[in-house]
Amino acid sequence: MHHAPLEEFRKKMGEVIDINVARAVLQWDQEVYMPPKAGEARGQQLATLSALAHRIFTDTKVGNLISALANDTSLDADAKKLVDETQHDYENAMKLPEAFVETFALEQSKAYDAWIEARKTADFKTFQPHLETLVELLKQKAEYFGYEDSPYNGLLDEYERGMSVKKLRTIFDELAEKQSALVKRIVQSPHQPDTGWLDQTWDVDKQWDLTVDVLKDMGYDFEAGRQDKSVHPFTTNFDLYDVRVTTRLHEKELFSALTGSIHEGGHALYEQGFRPEDRRSVLAQAPSLGIHESQSRMWENMIGRSLPFWKHYTGAYQAKFKGQLDSITPEQMHRAINRVEPTFIRVEADECTYNLHVILRFEIEVALIEGDIEVADVPAVWNEKIKAYLGLDVRDDTQGCLQDIHWSHGAMGYFPTYALGNLYAAQLFEQIEKDTPTLWQDVEAGEFGQLLSWLREHVHQYGRRKMAEEIVHDATGFEPSPAPYLRYLEGKYSALYDL
Amino acid sequence: MHHAPLEEFRKKMGEVIDINVARAVLQWDQEVYMPPKAGEARGQQLATLSALAHRIFTDTKVGNLISALANDTSLDADAKKLVDETQHDYENAMKLPEAFVETFALEQSKAYDAWIEARKTADFKTFQPHLETLVELLKQKAEYFGYEDSPYNGLLDEYERGMSVKKLRTIFDELAEKQSALVKRIVQSPHQPDTGWLDQTWDVDKQWDLTVDVLKDMGYDFEAGRQDKSVHPFTTNFDLYDVRVTTRLHEKELFSALTGSIHEGGHALYEQGFRPEDRRSVLAQAPSLGIHESQSRMWENMIGRSLPFWKHYTGAYQAKFKGQLDSITPEQMHRAINRVEPTFIRVEADECTYNLHVILRFEIEVALIEGDIEVADVPAVWNEKIKAYLGLDVRDDTQGCLQDIHWSHGAMGYFPTYALGNLYAAQLFEQIEKDTPTLWQDVEAGEFGQLLSWLREHVHQYGRRKMAEEIVHDATGFEPSPAPYLRYLEGKYSALYDL
Repeated sequence: MHHAPLEEFRKKMGEVIDINVARAVLQWDQEVYMPPKAGEARGQQLATLSALAHRIFTDTKVGNLISALANDTSLDADAKKLVDETQHDYENAMKLPEAFVETFALEQSKAYDAWIEARKTADFKTFQPHLETLVELLKQKAEYFGYEDSPYNGLLDEYERGMSVKKLRTIFDELAEKQSALVKRIVQSPHQPDTGWLDQTWDVDKQWDLTVDVLKDMGYDFEAGRQDKSVHPFTTNFDLYDVRVTTRLHEKELFSALTGSIHEGGHALYEQGFRPEDRRSVLAQAPSLGIHESQSRMWENMIGRSLPFWKHYTGAYQAKFKGQLDSITPEQMHRAINRVEPTFIRVEADECTYNLHVILRFEIEVALIEGDIEVADVPAVWNEKIKAYLGLDVRDDTQGCLQDIHWSHGAMGYFPTYALGNLYAAQLFEQIEKDTPTLWQDVEAGEFGQLLSWLREHVHQYGRRKMAEEIVHDATGFEPSPAPYLRYLEGKYSALYDL
Repeated sequence: MHHAPLEEFRKKMGEVIDINVARAVLQWDQEVYMPPKAGEARGQQLATLSALAHRIFTDTKVGNLISALANDTSLDADAKKLVDETQHDYENAMKLPEAFVETFALEQSKAYDAWIEARKTADFKTFQPHLETLVELLKQKAEYFGYEDSPYNGLLDEYERGMSVKKLRTIFDELAEKQSALVKRIVQSPHQPDTGWLDQTWDVDKQWDLTVDVLKDMGYDFEAGRQDKSVHPFTTNFDLYDVRVTTRLHEKELFSALTGSIHEGGHALYEQGFRPEDRRSVLAQAPSLGIHESQSRMWENMIGRSLPFWKHYTGAYQAKFKGQLDSITPEQMHRAINRVEPTFIRVEADECTYNLHVILRFEIEVALIEGDIEVADVPAVWNEKIKAYLGLDVRDDTQGCLQDIHWSHGAMGYFPTYALGNLYAAQLFEQIEKDTPTLWQDVEAGEFGQLLSWLREHVHQYGRRKMAEEIVHDATGFEPSPAPYLRYLEGKYSALYDL
């Protein structure tokens, strides 16, 4: 529709998005290609662009434009959604005073340095005062944002709109109990996989080629994206036609590049699936981190760790790694990539233990923000919980409460989205299996077109038009629930471990 | 020095530089890594950043700050220079009305498309109306900028401050006469090199490795830069500690990746040689394109095309290309890389003919801007001149007046800087040879430390503190002159062609 104030609004918001894209390009470059000495200047450049985007976005003229459009009854549904979503972001941006944002950024940066230092010496005490400051600031942040019931809800909303401590507790209590029990049965099973053959050296160029082949098979468009290498895999989006992924390569790990690529490929397919008319607007975004993570987890775990997948790709692996996998069957590949073992480190955790790592962090975060524990208590609480959930004794805090970067960035409320991603994935996937009778034949043939079409239709295309829970509900007919994920785990691992 | 308005000024100008750096990163990415479908969005992002940088820079508050500082007698010499140079840029930016800048950008973009189209069909007529529009706009631009004597001087100033048509005519008339004569003698010499052995396939990965080795030997800091591949080699600068180069790889060309890397390496060493205290300011820039080009040309031609260089590197080439260069001597490599042959295409031209290509363009540009010829006359004038200078008959305009991208970008006044680069290089290099008795022993040993130190001391460190002519004068004791370049050519090619 032609509408002068709407066009002006689109133009102004397009500018903000362009600046944020520039920032994303600079961050991508920082992770993949930037020379080592350039870090200081890059930090400065990123700070300038952030401040600039914030300054332009929070201009009172923008506010007036949004208010006028929000009350304009002549807008069609798409335009209305665009204005509403932008208004949501605008109001959030306006809630934080500039002085608070600056203090927060400063303390984040100090806390990050202290965290790096603390990890070197495995000394939580080095990090503690900084985490204390950040927790105080996070409590303030929650006050600025506003919340019902728990201040943690104020933080959660930034990552998973509409989610609450109450809902999460219900979900997580059930997950904790049932996943812990499942892990115990698995550990005690006599039917453990023999994975000694994984202990070989796997040429990284060959690994790379296989990740590219799988990404292409998944439907990732290399004309509108690319893959690069980085220490931590990630996905970044500069436009509908420029969505990039990265992966990591380790010659001692057969699967980590592949699972990294499939995971990021899942994120990337989401972002390559927004509507063309939403380009350069907030509608071309996912409504939450949890729903975004559902896409990466689904491709990584439900597809990439399935037996039909390995029935298709074991041959390609054998051909690539000639002489190294000759006698290995698809079943052995499948068992190896799904090996369950309680470990200290979240990012290395298998599907059965992963959520337990998340729940532990969630419980600590809520207790900190609600004031039930002090920062000084964190190591003891952490160690007690990991013992209870996984039966592990923490040797030092680098394998405990110092392992994740998130708190050093002042990010609390983020972890739960990882577990929600698993739940949404399983719930959506049950529906996909129902809707797609030939799904597993497809996967066994290395064909993912039907799956991708389903995701495009029921998830990707909406962007921020629907909230995460709405997407899941509309696609499956049910509110998000932990039941499908628990069914999925029970079914898959009972078979794998002969429970 | 601590000085509140100066700090405010530095901060504001730092912001503008950060935005321009972001633009440079996006352009670099566009040339080296961007996926094919992302072009449209990238164009939009670049336009947003350009407009933003211009808007912030030309804010009246910035103007007031500059005026106040320009009249502040308490500033030290460095601060004064910083303010003066910024004022120069500010005044230039203010001279062009925003509507003119927009029209110019629009017509550039149309002209570029028309040029691409015209090249496909070798039809100058397709490009002609657009070039006519651009020439009219360039005449206007010269009026906006202001000039003495010729309007062309108003355009020239943007690329080579202080240069004039009058000075260039004197220099170029001498060059044209003497270089034409030299080329005739070379072409008629019976002592032509046998370069049949160049007609082999040269593995591009091996070529790449050699370029990296040579860049390292030159002193290019790979911790503060990197090399990538692109269709047209270029250098780009995001910070003193992030200066990147690109090169091109063709398996049928033994030397083009190397000469590309050395050339860009010469530019990059300049930019890695600015003063640390000038980072994030306009002082960390070269004062002109000509002086910048002197560094790339010197490394590429005086060093990379010298016999001592090949006495050192022929062994490395033989080892890399085992079985392909076994019987080739350093003298043969040297003769091959210096082969003189009049050709239509400037970017493929050898040292003896290169300036003639430039002079031809300069003469046409001046005639167009001064109104002595019409755009419609360009093909005929071009063909007549290339016949006179190089004895060549143009078959169609793609090997004539449609070959360069510059005019389609509305850039006139740029070409002369290429020839000035050659002259400055030769004049500086004569002095370097005097000041460095062991220079050629060094080169023969693959050692370039003394050379780089000399360039750092006499050229690089000044940034924009000195104008190009001042740098040359202070370093050599003489005004820039064509004599050293002519002596250099005469000496080198008399030996090579036994004249």
